[in-house]
Amino acid sequence: MAAVPGSPATAELGFAAVDLDREHRQGLPEIVYAPGKQPHEITGIVAALLEGSRGPVLVTRVAADVAETVQRTHAGGTYDAPGRVLAWRVPPAGPVSITVVTAGTSDGPVADEAAAVARAVGLGVTEVRDVGVAGLHRLLGRVDELREAEVIVVVAGMEGALASVVAGLVGAPVVAVPTSTGYGAAFEGVTALLAMLSSCAAGVTVVNIDSGFGAALAAHRLAYQLNRAVPAS
Amino acid sequence: MAAVPGSPATAELGFAAVDLDREHRQGLPEIVYAPGKQPHEITGIVAALLEGSRGPVLVTRVAADVAETVQRTHAGGTYDAPGRVLAWRVPPAGPVSITVVTAGTSDGPVADEAAAVARAVGLGVTEVRDVGVAGLHRLLGRVDELREAEVIVVVAGMEGALASVVAGLVGAPVVAVPTSTGYGAAFEGVTALLAMLSSCAAGVTVVNIDSGFGAALAAHRLAYQLNRAVPAS
Amino acid sequence: MAAVPGSPATAELGFAAVDLDREHRQGLPEIVYAPGKQPHEITGIVAALLEGSRGPVLVTRVAADVAETVQRTHAGGTYDAPGRVLAWRVPPAGPVSITVVTAGTSDGPVADEAAAVARAVGLGVTEVRDVGVAGLHRLLGRVDELREAEVIVVVAGMEGALASVVAGLVGAPVVAVPTSTGYGAAFEGVTALLAMLSSCAAGVTVVNIDSGFGAALAAHRLAYQLNRAVPAS
Amino acid sequence: MAAVPGSPATAELGFAAVDLDREHRQGLPEIVYAPGKQPHEITGIVAALLEGSRGPVLVTRVAADVAETVQRTHAGGTYDAPGRVLAWRVPPAGPVSITVVTAGTSDGPVADEAAAVARAVGLGVTEVRDVGVAGLHRLLGRVDELREAEVIVVVAGMEGALASVVAGLVGAPVVAVPTSTGYGAAFEGVTALLAMLSSCAAGVTVVNIDSGFGAALAAHRLAYQLNRAVPAS
Amino acid sequence: MAAVPGSPATAELGFAAVDLDREHRQGLPEIVYAPGKQPHEITGIVAALLEGSRGPVLVTRVAADVAETVQRTHAGGTYDAPGRVLAWRVPPAGPVSITVVTAGTSDGPVADEAAAVARAVGLGVTEVRDVGVAGLHRLLGRVDELREAEVIVVVAGMEGALASVVAGLVGAPVVAVPTSTGYGAAFEGVTALLAMLSSCAAGVTVVNIDSGFGAALAAHRLAYQLNRAVPAS
Amino acid sequence: MAAVPGSPATAELGFAAVDLDREHRQGLPEIVYAPGKQPHEITGIVAALLEGSRGPVLVTRVAADVAETVQRTHAGGTYDAPGRVLAWRVPPAGPVSITVVTAGTSDGPVADEAAAVARAVGLGVTEVRDVGVAGLHRLLGRVDELREAEVIVVVAGMEGALASVVAGLVGAPVVAVPTSTGYGAAFEGVTALLAMLSSCAAGVTVVNIDSGFGAALAAHRLAYQLNRAVPAS
Amino acid sequence: MAAVPGSPATAELGFAAVDLDREHRQGLPEIVYAPGKQPHEITGIVAALLEGSRGPVLVTRVAADVAETVQRTHAGGTYDAPGRVLAWRVPPAGPVSITVVTAGTSDGPVADEAAAVARAVGLGVTEVRDVGVAGLHRLLGRVDELREAEVIVVVAGMEGALASVVAGLVGAPVVAVPTSTGYGAAFEGVTALLAMLSSCAAGVTVVNIDSGFGAALAAHRLAYQLNRAVPAS
Amino acid sequence: MAAVPGSPATAELGFAAVDLDREHRQGLPEIVYAPGKQPHEITGIVAALLEGSRGPVLVTRVAADVAETVQRTHAGGTYDAPGRVLAWRVPPAGPVSITVVTAGTSDGPVADEAAAVARAVGLGVTEVRDVGVAGLHRLLGRVDELREAEVIVVVAGMEGALASVVAGLVGAPVVAVPTSTGYGAAFEGVTALLAMLSSCAAGVTVVNIDSGFGAALAAHRLAYQLNRAVPAS
Repeated sequence: MAAVPGSPATAELGFAAVDLDREHRQGLPEIVYAPGKQPHEITGIVAALLEGSRGPVLVTRVAADVAETVQRTHAGGTYDAPGRVLAWRVPPAGPVSITVVTAGTSDGPVADEAAAVARAVGLGVTEVRDVGVAGLHRLLGRVDELREAEVIVVVAGMEGALASVVAGLVGAPVVAVPTSTGYGAAFEGVTALLAMLSSCAAGVTVVNIDSGFGAALAAHRLAYQLNRAVPAS
Repeated sequence: MAAVPGSPATAELGFAAVDLDREHRQGLPEIVYAPGKQPHEITGIVAALLEGSRGPVLVTRVAADVAETVQRTHAGGTYDAPGRVLAWRVPPAGPVSITVVTAGTSDGPVADEAAAVARAVGLGVTEVRDVGVAGLHRLLGRVDELREAEVIVVVAGMEGALASVVAGLVGAPVVAVPTSTGYGAAFEGVTALLAMLSSCAAGVTVVNIDSGFGAALAAHRLAYQLNRAVPAS
Repeated sequence: MAAVPGSPATAELGFAAVDLDREHRQGLPEIVYAPGKQPHEITGIVAALLEGSRGPVLVTRVAADVAETVQRTHAGGTYDAPGRVLAWRVPPAGPVSITVVTAGTSDGPVADEAAAVARAVGLGVTEVRDVGVAGLHRLLGRVDELREAEVIVVVAGMEGALASVVAGLVGAPVVAVPTSTGYGAAFEGVTALLAMLSSCAAGVTVVNIDSGFGAALAAHRLAYQLNRAVPAS
Repeated sequence: MAAVPGSPATAELGFAAVDLDREHRQGLPEIVYAPGKQPHEITGIVAALLEGSRGPVLVTRVAADVAETVQRTHAGGTYDAPGRVLAWRVPPAGPVSITVVTAGTSDGPVADEAAAVARAVGLGVTEVRDVGVAGLHRLLGRVDELREAEVIVVVAGMEGALASVVAGLVGAPVVAVPTSTGYGAAFEGVTALLAMLSSCAAGVTVVNIDSGFGAALAAHRLAYQLNRAVPAS
Repeated sequence: MAAVPGSPATAELGFAAVDLDREHRQGLPEIVYAPGKQPHEITGIVAALLEGSRGPVLVTRVAADVAETVQRTHAGGTYDAPGRVLAWRVPPAGPVSITVVTAGTSDGPVADEAAAVARAVGLGVTEVRDVGVAGLHRLLGRVDELREAEVIVVVAGMEGALASVVAGLVGAPVVAVPTSTGYGAAFEGVTALLAMLSSCAAGVTVVNIDSGFGAALAAHRLAYQLNRAVPAS
Repeated sequence: MAAVPGSPATAELGFAAVDLDREHRQGLPEIVYAPGKQPHEITGIVAALLEGSRGPVLVTRVAADVAETVQRTHAGGTYDAPGRVLAWRVPPAGPVSITVVTAGTSDGPVADEAAAVARAVGLGVTEVRDVGVAGLHRLLGRVDELREAEVIVVVAGMEGALASVVAGLVGAPVVAVPTSTGYGAAFEGVTALLAMLSSCAAGVTVVNIDSGFGAALAAHRLAYQLNRAVPAS
Repeated sequence: MAAVPGSPATAELGFAAVDLDREHRQGLPEIVYAPGKQPHEITGIVAALLEGSRGPVLVTRVAADVAETVQRTHAGGTYDAPGRVLAWRVPPAGPVSITVVTAGTSDGPVADEAAAVARAVGLGVTEVRDVGVAGLHRLLGRVDELREAEVIVVVAGMEGALASVVAGLVGAPVVAVPTSTGYGAAFEGVTALLAMLSSCAAGVTVVNIDSGFGAALAAHRLAYQLNRAVPAS
Repeated sequence: MAAVPGSPATAELGFAAVDLDREHRQGLPEIVYAPGKQPHEITGIVAALLEGSRGPVLVTRVAADVAETVQRTHAGGTYDAPGRVLAWRVPPAGPVSITVVTAGTSDGPVADEAAAVARAVGLGVTEVRDVGVAGLHRLLGRVDELREAEVIVVVAGMEGALASVVAGLVGAPVVAVPTSTGYGAAFEGVTALLAMLSSCAAGVTVVNIDSGFGAALAAHRLAYQLNRAVPAS
């Protein structure tokens, strides 16, 4: 099979094979998803990442008590409680920002994750909260902010209409995050997901249900390109 | 079993048992759904209805050639081609009107059915077409008309966001009709259906996919009550 | 973008942007959905609504202990325990009434929510309970009441057949509320939902699963129009 | 492996292994389902059945022209066009009858299949057509007939409510056949299927969508037992 | 509306409308489904049934402690713990029996409910347990028993193949009960349900997932007819 | 309601309300989706767009004969047959390029649409075809190209694994387009859609099934921002 | 990235990138799936495969006329009409055989594909047809053959019970192929698929709906290992 | 019915009918699935198996405390905690090995079950952990091991892409196990399941979600044949 350029490295921990090459390929070390991992496993992976990379090291969806346990071994981390993100070596906010727009207060935790991850990987974050379409004037009153936005993350559950409305108002990239807010026919976020994929506003892209993380990483990919286009001269 | 008040009548045609009591119960004779019925069956049922009732007689989803065949036996009917509705004894428009709002041009045939059925049962009809949320100013430019509306029928496919947006702008009854417009994740109207049922705007009601007929009849029920409230003095 | 008539107001609380214009648009202030909100958040939003509007202020799906907490700050509210609705400034019952019909005793809590919300927004409420179609004479014995009804809300789970049967008996608007009653093939209310949407009785409209709230608000929209038609001279 | 009593026979035709023991086990020879089989295959299987059994030989869902082709080789068959059933050696109607009840005219073809298969296997057949619940008096006017019925087959599409209503009125076995009548949320019969499985009327049993055949065979099983109980003395 | 023969009675308890006519229509009083009802509600309904009917009075899916509470008011009941059925006035086993066949030990509770309900309504019960098709000789070793059976209830989860295999071996009525046994692609009984509905063995009928109750009641309907055919001379 | 900045324009054609403000909001005029529109309607909308905007005017999913008809009225358009895109005023390729990667030859038409739309709105296009993961060396042999890419559009059906593999290799934005390639469990693209949404490679975004158009427009949004960041000095 | 051993080759045809390394990796050249490919594309890919590999070259799901066209350029191929497989350089049957078992005659085409592909890649093929479980003795009469089988492919639609029954009788590998035979609740093969995945007989593996091809290739993988274990000394 | 060769034995325990013939038919005694069984039931079944067979006796998905209870009666068993498997008479590893490959650490428990069952039935086990495709070099670095593997079990959740990638790299049998790892659109393993069934790499077979057990048994069937081919001379 064809040789692949570069020289990747893996930290074999037995219970995990940490991808130490990812920072080289994608400008960001591997990120640790906490659910299903033991605190000592998280601690071990974090150790490998802190040692084997130079950029920010993140653990997502981590409970406060687990975060505290891990921080006992690895000092210097900061824990974002609303977003449930634990991070080390957070860079200062770079030249690219995302604007996180939420439909309702129940969508808050997903927006919090998007914001926390975004900040931890060096993106600026602006928030426009509780502007669901049932009271359209709340959104229209903030159109100017939206038109200034570089990348917009729309977080909405129920019928997810906000994604279409926002995307119709701006030319910037719109990443839609369906949330599991709602009941019955909202089907734990599936309805919002399908609605966002079927948006009448062209060029909306969608990530998994409740994945504030996914939206932040999609934004990081955009920032990675924007940064390439505008070197931090 | 308990006796039921009134004295219902049924026209037994062998292939059908026509409900001649419906006009008495609901203010409107039974309506004939053409698909799956032979032209001679439609002709026979129409004969029973014209004879056994006094109000409008309607055949829905009827093709032009079938309509023509039926009209040869039963003169005096009018055929609404866009809405595919054949009707006799259409009353003049009564005091109640519906406003049919569509998201896009592909939703037209469903709106046409809603409008044709509504007119044939004595409702006034106003139309606001192609005001989907991807170009929100088109809708906002017509808010005054919407706020004047007595009953609003919102016809939309894809993500069906228009229902939420319209219902957020007005206090009148909103009947949402999901359409099978769209592809892929629009799932033949299922996504719009679920989205409308999950609307963040309170008090939206929903009828079956592509059922302009259902929306018109729901409006007729509302008109039936409004008329009771305001007798045609 | 086109200017929109009127001058909407929003109470920006940080965690929420309360729509103070809604009463003007829809004749009813924004209603607070309790799940997912902290007691202090509910208290804050209620404060904004009590101050910024004149009509009834409601919190739905609120547990008794949370209701008590909120009432400590905002005296004068009344808590409807079966319907889990907390309300202030409840108006006297207006000229429009709804008739809530349930199929079985398990559908009770959803009917309770419909009734409690309806009362809190000024609608009269009549109840016809436990008249499912397995013992049809129970329903037939109350046909006269149903035929007097102005707006009928049918609450049924399992196969949801009651909606079709009731709608076939009356000409008034019928809002069907599928409930999650049943097991197995009832699929948490989805079967009743689909059945109601596919009703052979024309003009039935449907709201989300278990949404007594949605049915009451749909009725409020109708009452809003009926009231416009018959001014409270 | 344990020996099984009896001495089954199979006609190996290469393209098919005809079960010649079935008549012995179940009181009825194997029945041929036509779709997907070539006329010469049907002819061959019929030959094996006519020779290897003594009871009625049936081909179901067979088009008129194919039936004609097969009859050229095997004279003496009769073709029921509405039910699309071709049969030889049809017995006279035995002591057991089924009553086939349909909701609407579109459910006719499924009822026709049920009736044709039932007659061809020696059951009496009574029909009660077009008594859907939207005009309940049509059904109530025939309650006496239903209460006389030995086995009731309810054929209904859309929301399938008729099965619950009928089953609530009688104590006899009720076999429900959901049909693919309807559109949108009727999901090609799935909604009626789920509704019938979730019936609030106890003891309803259900067969596959559009399977008039299945209902007739279920009735045959009942008749087989009833006949055992009351020998044709 | 047409008068319905007979003179039905309803016990209006406020929280429930007990159908006291059901025994007359169906040969069996209304049966009480315990989940979602308060002990005092069950006690009240049982009182109405014991007073207003003569046949067996049953409460299903009732926990042992609730059963005990209800029995304190209504002595003379018997509680079947495995089947979770509480019953009064259980008749002696009549001339009709059912044979309950299970695929595996996990299907036991559903079979227990079927057996307990069947016994409480006067049916004889035979059991053939743990004869799933993975060890086919277990079933084949009991074919004689199956061929003697009057009505067979097949209880199976996972892929539900047992229903097809049993139905292929006998001519008697087969009522299939899918169970929620299994995981992953078994989808809580949906796979067994669909498989049973699609059975290659003709004439199988199906009831809801985990509904031992439904199967017993379907058997009761058959027994009701068999008893009519063979009067208890 | 709050005034919205700017002064949007709409061309009211009766059958359509063309959004002439979109170019101002999003840097691209409204795009015409041909299915469901009559040729004369397309011609009319194109007229409005050519007159009311300055940028490229596109019609997508348009058949060759319809394209020819429309071009008779509006000369100067070019028709991309593989992508089924008809366009006027196509700008020269700007500074931003997309790389369209396909898994197999059956994914070609969707990739063609993405490429044609992208070119017509001024994006450069590079193609990497038929590099599905069943023969991984084909993809690995082109890693250098992928790492040079500015925006990657991955077009894949069946299990859609290519999206994860590509996204794991690069840091650039990856827009995944599921296609309806495959059969059975591929469920017309739904499986690829869900798989892409569940990708283990972080930051992948997804558009609707078979929507090459959606991916191109998502890329246009990125380019719009990249162009803002790097003015075409 | 880590170098991969070996030196893969790809034939770049523009419209396709033919994997010429596959024979080296898997003992079998790439196989061409005809649907969606033009005859000249198939001809081109076959040319590349005939030249770039030494083993059998196959085209599957190819219509007779397309096969004829391709054979005009590449003589020496043989076309299996029932299995719709076109093949060159078919090896003699090797030491490993598969036994293809079908439930009914409608499953024939899928079994034909499995057999044709298997033969074309050097496997022996035995067939046991039409032994569905509705007439179990047909299968039991052939248990000896099944117990001799090296790899069993069970092809069944509807409820797919045959897979469980066969797998319970033998210790050999069983690959189950669900087919789209059946209607209604059979859901185009989905029910059989889920049933096979939920089989109570341990160790059954499953391939895609109607994929006789997939089963044959799975068998080839096993033969590949068996051949490694028993060199063709 | 045809006699079946052999003389099967069943241990009738009342609550279970233990298949003592299975070892003879399949080379492995029946395996006990613990969930839903009482400890004394497990103890009883194990007794029957230890006495009635000679091979390994296994209990799967058994909690540590239950295992301890059972071991008090039946000494000599060993409990594999990660795989939750309790076993007696574990044979030494035979000549056939499986290689268990996992995508991520969350897939560990399913891989543990596969490994524990495999070892307990006499298979060798090799593990390749945490080589998901998001860091492809981890997998590519171990291609040599994979190419040595006799049977590969791929355990992956989320989008399940690893199965396709691994199957594309090797010629050996690949059994794919979808896991319920992931959230939202991963749908508890359904997405991985469908993706694996739709794999673009030919010849992948699939077992139920999270069924490490199923994969190990499928491997046992392969080993059973490989052992037949290469007698343990």
